[in-house]
Amino acid sequence: MTKTTLTQVERAQLAMMLEVCAFPKPGNVDRCHDYATTRLEHFLASTILVRPVLERAERAGDGIGNILLDAVELTSGHSGGNTHFGAFILLIPLVMGGDIAGADRLVRRTTVEDAVQFYRAFGQTKVRVISGDELDVHDPQAIEELKSRQMTLFDVMLYSAKNDMVAREWINGFQLTRKGADLLFAHGCGPESVSLAFLDLLATEPDTFISKKHGKDAAWEVMQKAQDVREGRRDLVAFDQECINIGMNPGSIADIIIASIYIALGEGWVWDC
Amino acid sequence: MTKTTLTQVERAQLAMMLEVCAFPKPGNVDRCHDYATTRLEHFLASTILVRPVLERAERAGDGIGNILLDAVELTSGHSGGNTHFGAFILLIPLVMGGDIAGADRLVRRTTVEDAVQFYRAFGQTKVRVISGDELDVHDPQAIEELKSRQMTLFDVMLYSAKNDMVAREWINGFQLTRKGADLLFAHGCGPESVSLAFLDLLATEPDTFISKKHGKDAAWEVMQKAQDVREGRRDLVAFDQECINIGMNPGSIADIIIASIYIALGEGWVWDC
Repeated sequence: MTKTTLTQVERAQLAMMLEVCAFPKPGNVDRCHDYATTRLEHFLASTILVRPVLERAERAGDGIGNILLDAVELTSGHSGGNTHFGAFILLIPLVMGGDIAGADRLVRRTTVEDAVQFYRAFGQTKVRVISGDELDVHDPQAIEELKSRQMTLFDVMLYSAKNDMVAREWINGFQLTRKGADLLFAHGCGPESVSLAFLDLLATEPDTFISKKHGKDAAWEVMQKAQDVREGRRDLVAFDQECINIGMNPGSIADIIIASIYIALGEGWVWDC
Repeated sequence: MTKTTLTQVERAQLAMMLEVCAFPKPGNVDRCHDYATTRLEHFLASTILVRPVLERAERAGDGIGNILLDAVELTSGHSGGNTHFGAFILLIPLVMGGDIAGADRLVRRTTVEDAVQFYRAFGQTKVRVISGDELDVHDPQAIEELKSRQMTLFDVMLYSAKNDMVAREWINGFQLTRKGADLLFAHGCGPESVSLAFLDLLATEPDTFISKKHGKDAAWEVMQKAQDVREGRRDLVAFDQECINIGMNPGSIADIIIASIYIALGEGWVWDC
């Protein structure tokens, strides 16, 4: 029973584990930082508890929307709140499709029912949406609106892409996921590569989780400070602590890095050299 | 699909995750400490990768020896070496039996074949045995010796119990596992209880992983220093670092605490209040 290759489910779970452990990683939960109500152990518990849903995704026996809803429900049995909603939006089509090309085909074939289930899943999280959004997930009318407009889940992502870099991955062929995987290979094997790839993305992309929470200027400022860190003009550990202190957490880039690790593991990147 | 109760497999995986994350925990790998070749991520990868074997244990469809051998093989696909051999010796009968009473019945019914498979599993790890042991697992004659003496796996544990506190659990009805679970309840909900219960056991029991590696005096000294910490005469974080620096890792108490968390979770202890 010695394992030489990983299943897609195991790759997804290892990706979730490696991302949350990676340190230093400005602003997010990691080995050395918790948020008051969401801690390292909550992320790792979700990583363990989501397994049956990932197995369903690997069998590809259901729609993306249903699987997403189950993933959120199965990982809400602890007090840490939402840990991986954005990551599941990327991981589930990737596990179902096996790789980026397969996921890209699947997301373009989603249905109105997928969109409805996605909204139900979203409604169970406390993930922030921009107020005034006419398809606010916390508005019970939104699902009726989706149905009357016959919007598929792909249409919803297209609609959200302007303000959400995770949604943007669905419509542009998982560009940043690809870029993150390439960065992991460029930084070489070992878990240190995860924090380096994270910093690279943070220094080049304004995080939309931050922009929804604190505004676009804040996201831009974090990106510029991450550039300073990369160029040696700012201390990484101090920047990490500053972000933690003011709740400036680049959660969308973390979601994308999880997807990147999943892809890189499938292409032979070694996490534990 | 919302989960209110945990399966036995999930309890076992959460126990492995919570134990390794708990900090501060003198001498062992934790959130803030790695050993050079065995890191936090290796323990967490084993926690993820062992799932199919734990599922087999939950179905109780095979012998303890076969399942142990598979657990070791399935978690040796990374470079971190053995992470959980001692924990599996306790967790596998506990998952198969559901609780301490069930495990106690199972371990007393093990066979010579279980003992042979256990020796094969042990031989794949680099777990230290006392030199001169006439049933040295690294001696190819040992398996023939087991067969000729008709020793069951329970007999092997009885034989090892004098020098191995994990083996002792099998023959005394999982006494320290029970004590650890009671300590978790006494310290209350939340992950902090894990490090407190760990320190309690460390302060009252000489760790046999340490005694095999560094001698009985060393294990006794670590126990006394842990007592000093509990009584406020020694700094916990400094003691942790001292143990790490000299490779003084109480691995057997860690194994027992994993079993304790598994039991406590099944009895309603809450890990994430």
